[in-house]
Amino acid sequence: MLKEALDYAHQNHERFLNELKDFLTIPSISTDPEHKQDMQRGAEWLAGQLREIGMENVQILPTAGHPVVYGDWLHAGKMAPTVMVYGHYDVQPPDPLELWQTPPFEAEVRGDNLYARGSADMKGQVMASLKAVESIMKNGGLPVNIKWLIEGEEEIGSQHLDEFIKDHTELLKCDFCLNTDAGIIAADKPAITTGLRGLAYYELKVYGPAKDLHSGLYGGIIHNPAQALAELIAGMHDKKGRITLPGFYDNVRKLSKKDRKEFARLPLKKKTYLEQTGAPGLWGEPDFTPPERLGARPTLEVNGLLSGFTGPGSKTVLPAWAMAKISCRLVPDQTPKETTKQLVKYLKTHAPKDIRWELTFIHGAGAALVSSDSAAVMALSEAFKAVWGTEPYFRREGGSIGVVVQLQQRLGVDSVLSGFALEDCDAHSPNEKLHLPTWDRGIDTLIHFFYKLA
Amino acid sequence: MLKEALDYAHQNHERFLNELKDFLTIPSISTDPEHKQDMQRGAEWLAGQLREIGMENVQILPTAGHPVVYGDWLHAGKMAPTVMVYGHYDVQPPDPLELWQTPPFEAEVRGDNLYARGSADMKGQVMASLKAVESIMKNGGLPVNIKWLIEGEEEIGSQHLDEFIKDHTELLKCDFCLNTDAGIIAADKPAITTGLRGLAYYELKVYGPAKDLHSGLYGGIIHNPAQALAELIAGMHDKKGRITLPGFYDNVRKLSKKDRKEFARLPLKKKTYLEQTGAPGLWGEPDFTPPERLGARPTLEVNGLLSGFTGPGSKTVLPAWAMAKISCRLVPDQTPKETTKQLVKYLKTHAPKDIRWELTFIHGAGAALVSSDSAAVMALSEAFKAVWGTEPYFRREGGSIGVVVQLQQRLGVDSVLSGFALEDCDAHSPNEKLHLPTWDRGIDTLIHFFYKLA
Repeated sequence: MLKEALDYAHQNHERFLNELKDFLTIPSISTDPEHKQDMQRGAEWLAGQLREIGMENVQILPTAGHPVVYGDWLHAGKMAPTVMVYGHYDVQPPDPLELWQTPPFEAEVRGDNLYARGSADMKGQVMASLKAVESIMKNGGLPVNIKWLIEGEEEIGSQHLDEFIKDHTELLKCDFCLNTDAGIIAADKPAITTGLRGLAYYELKVYGPAKDLHSGLYGGIIHNPAQALAELIAGMHDKKGRITLPGFYDNVRKLSKKDRKEFARLPLKKKTYLEQTGAPGLWGEPDFTPPERLGARPTLEVNGLLSGFTGPGSKTVLPAWAMAKISCRLVPDQTPKETTKQLVKYLKTHAPKDIRWELTFIHGAGAALVSSDSAAVMALSEAFKAVWGTEPYFRREGGSIGVVVQLQQRLGVDSVLSGFALEDCDAHSPNEKLHLPTWDRGIDTLIHFFYKLA
Repeated sequence: MLKEALDYAHQNHERFLNELKDFLTIPSISTDPEHKQDMQRGAEWLAGQLREIGMENVQILPTAGHPVVYGDWLHAGKMAPTVMVYGHYDVQPPDPLELWQTPPFEAEVRGDNLYARGSADMKGQVMASLKAVESIMKNGGLPVNIKWLIEGEEEIGSQHLDEFIKDHTELLKCDFCLNTDAGIIAADKPAITTGLRGLAYYELKVYGPAKDLHSGLYGGIIHNPAQALAELIAGMHDKKGRITLPGFYDNVRKLSKKDRKEFARLPLKKKTYLEQTGAPGLWGEPDFTPPERLGARPTLEVNGLLSGFTGPGSKTVLPAWAMAKISCRLVPDQTPKETTKQLVKYLKTHAPKDIRWELTFIHGAGAALVSSDSAAVMALSEAFKAVWGTEPYFRREGGSIGVVVQLQQRLGVDSVLSGFALEDCDAHSPNEKLHLPTWDRGIDTLIHFFYKLA
């Protein structure tokens, strides 16, 4: 049955790829209200796929935001485990558009890669799960019970998923969740993720004069809002790269010796990061290694800046306002609620009286640590070994996946975190790509995984 | 002849206004390459006007940038003075467009004001000069010789005007220049400007990673370019609002007791500025009064900021670059060249090694002080008294007019600086407006002025 399923996957490779390309043409950008229709199209396309591969009870379930796609197949018997397969069908905005070599929503294969927004994060991953399950279903049926939870708001912080899970605890009951949104290190370095950072995302606006002013007629007597914003941002880190929000590190869990040993094992050197990013140098808290800073230390990042005149040439304007998008990556045991309080306190203390400021919390979620020796993690580890011929790395990762925390809190269920996107896949950047040989091996790995669970 | 000219101006008021509206429909935005054709149309429209009011030798003269409109009438005799009337037909960009109540290039009268981009700065002023001269020409001819120099690059720092003046010293020879680009204080407070600040305008770009990165996957090991830019900007002022560029104040001319006395005479209180700007408070060097800071102290202003994601919602991006438009207002005896050196020195000292930076000088001009007791200034002062019934204020102003410095240096000629735009005219802002009763009095004042020169 394993062999037949693997053969089926290999024989249908071309069709699988074409179906993925089809999925990638839908610009399901959850943050942009103009793409609401495309979000609905994305959900319907997925529901169609679930029905085709033999899932039952397939539904597009509403939330206060974008809908969730659900489906299940529960005929493996009461003794078999019930696996929830998590995914998301929404993608990041493609800006800046001019940097894409081919349009972001016209999937194109160049060399070993498939280029499109969402190819790696995570339509390619969702399709790997779907096609692994299809291959098993067509060759004897699944040895486990399965439930699909595919949301449309991951890229905007899974804003309504927590409410949804709370309202559907019976429907979503399961033994663990497979989440392939975490990726691996490189094509020859499979990995299972055991920790994720949380997130708290804000917009900070600083207001000065009632309208844009002539910088000659008023420059020198008005606190320029762009300057005031720069001063506030600059003060949020000290010279060592530590964040200065009051109490920011109070609840940061200390790294144990064992933790630091695991981090040290990872094949991630300074050079790796310099190559991946193209930055002139690395930066950050000197007391922690780069993998530790990424996996176990919180951050405060400026995601965007806007003020005044930004076109070509010059305009001698003293701007009326300045805006920054600011987000914190959180680690255990920080919470977005506390971070908001700390940021407000910082602003109240440091914002000068000659400007006004306004802080908007956009979305957030706590950090997550998951058990690294559960039966499910062991099964995935063995599946990797079977296909890759090598043990996966265990790591703690810098990104945030809201659902992992929500499933722990609402259903008491851990997630098995991995995936088949590589570190250099340019998720969230122009020319996002999926490494196709890794994707193929990913489908094989998941086929092995489901059999090993039984 | 004075009376006839004034009567003529009053009788033709409606036509004058319609011609001004016509001029204002041309979007002659010098900084925007897309409006090159409109710049040409603006020049041609003006050349037509000059011919219609009886000017001779009317020409559209090329520069390396936008053309200069020239015309003259030199039949007042060798004993009569030769006045150069300066103006500019280019305007600032209208952004942000959404804040305009009516489209910026469809002039509309609401109440006492005419709303359009360029209405105050300075198409309305150019038309006041043209219509004053027309009124005199139609009623006995001018008692002075006149030359018109109307450029198309004032809003981009008169980049090619200096070269143009150098190449046309014989054509432009004159006794003094009338420049109505300086405005007055309020409808009941006429003023003559005796000092102007200079300008040095830059774009500063900070580069980090080679492309936008996922802020979760890389946040904590890369110096965020938006943060680095904020740090650099924040460091450019100390806590008292003094500029920290090395040597920045070395050549700033000290205020004499007489200077400070003149500043103290101005009817400009803290309240005036708070009302004009709508800012929550005033800011700046505590050792100088607001009019002193505006007229006699240099500034460093952030005119624009751009980095990363700036749309609605969120994008968890660690941006590849961040940009700021930065400009300095200069006072005697600073020069743009020195300021550039100081800014570069600051950046070399303070920019961290983990980012790259690039500074582009966009344009600049030195500051100017002009004599306040010349025959021409006296004539204008008397003309104001005749029409307004009050003495004008003498003041030093915060804005920059490149041509004033250039005429001093190239032709040894002072400018008489005034105009009929009010402080609250919103030059460079949305809903720029011209106060029409003041404009009418302005035409009358210029008619008086030309007769008083004879």
